[in-house]
Amino acid sequence: MEKLTLHEYAASGNCYKIRLTAALLGLPIERRQYDILKGETRTPEFLAGINANGRIPVLQIGEQFLPESNAACWYLAEGSPLIPASRFARADMLRWMFFEQYNHEPNVATLRFWLAFVGEANLSDAQRGQIAAKRVAGDAALRLMDDHLATADWLVGAQASLADIALYAYTHVAEEGGGFTLADYPHVGRWLARVATLPGYLAITD
Amino acid sequence: MEKLTLHEYAASGNCYKIRLTAALLGLPIERRQYDILKGETRTPEFLAGINANGRIPVLQIGEQFLPESNAACWYLAEGSPLIPASRFARADMLRWMFFEQYNHEPNVATLRFWLAFVGEANLSDAQRGQIAAKRVAGDAALRLMDDHLATADWLVGAQASLADIALYAYTHVAEEGGGFTLADYPHVGRWLARVATLPGYLAITD
Repeated sequence: MEKLTLHEYAASGNCYKIRLTAALLGLPIERRQYDILKGETRTPEFLAGINANGRIPVLQIGEQFLPESNAACWYLAEGSPLIPASRFARADMLRWMFFEQYNHEPNVATLRFWLAFVGEANLSDAQRGQIAAKRVAGDAALRLMDDHLATADWLVGAQASLADIALYAYTHVAEEGGGFTLADYPHVGRWLARVATLPGYLAITD
Repeated sequence: MEKLTLHEYAASGNCYKIRLTAALLGLPIERRQYDILKGETRTPEFLAGINANGRIPVLQIGEQFLPESNAACWYLAEGSPLIPASRFARADMLRWMFFEQYNHEPNVATLRFWLAFVGEANLSDAQRGQIAAKRVAGDAALRLMDDHLATADWLVGAQASLADIALYAYTHVAEEGGGFTLADYPHVGRWLARVATLPGYLAITD
């Protein structure tokens, strides 16, 4: 594989997903930091050269740039056991990854970012007005996962896949900033512990 | 392939994506309608039997159920030219599909739904308070597409892929309800016309 460089903000769960996927696969990856609280991903240089969408993570593969965390995980994991071999299971894995970006991340990750990184006092009125709805929607996403994990060790099939990595990233830090209470989701709790035992696992702070 | 049934609300762009993918591939698909304005996807029967997330579309493949529009498109298109053959292009296609669900759909599709289907007078205060931000974010998503399509006929590579289908669905009806002005995005306009000439194409109202 060509040289891999991750353009990232280390505390972002979306960036961690890619590091965790690379670690589980034994792939070395160079890291370049941008402070999103200082707007370092909205500079003209970043927009022109790294990602016109002004966001991290971006996985650089040689001279090619790939935004979107779950697409980057897919790129790294193709041909590995982290992507299921059956057609339905593969699509079902993508189902959980799209659920993550639509129902989970905008609530669970955004509340953590607002409350633990930006600080509630620094939020706009429009943001503050969304906190309650994001808590309800984030709890609904965690509830859906908990119900599913009540009868399954992994989100798809009999072993870990990118679906588990994608949803682990922000779930395991969901309590930061006071957003969510993981004790309400015991099956999720056991699944989080299971992910942390995977060979090659690394922590978000590593 | 096993019998395909689409659990859907016909006017939803997310459901249309799946019908369009099936049509381009020549796959017959049976359709079952649910009125989301009457809560027909939140009944105990729907939650228990079709999708615990209470949403359409769900693609039923034999006795298996697959939620999430882009995952369903992936299932249908595996092994076809709608998914690029190169590893990077395949991941780059998923990049646009995740962009669609994160940056485009929650703005472009939600404003259409609120303004053209629910009606502005029936929105909650919290929803009404988000209209301006969703217009800005939706325009940013359309601008990003327009800039990309200034130098490319298709979002990824030299032919249509699922990325084009996923983003076509809500872009081509973005003006409904007064949400967006497509004349501001001429490259998007030409790309929309290009998609509509694909062999097998069908309209959202078909």
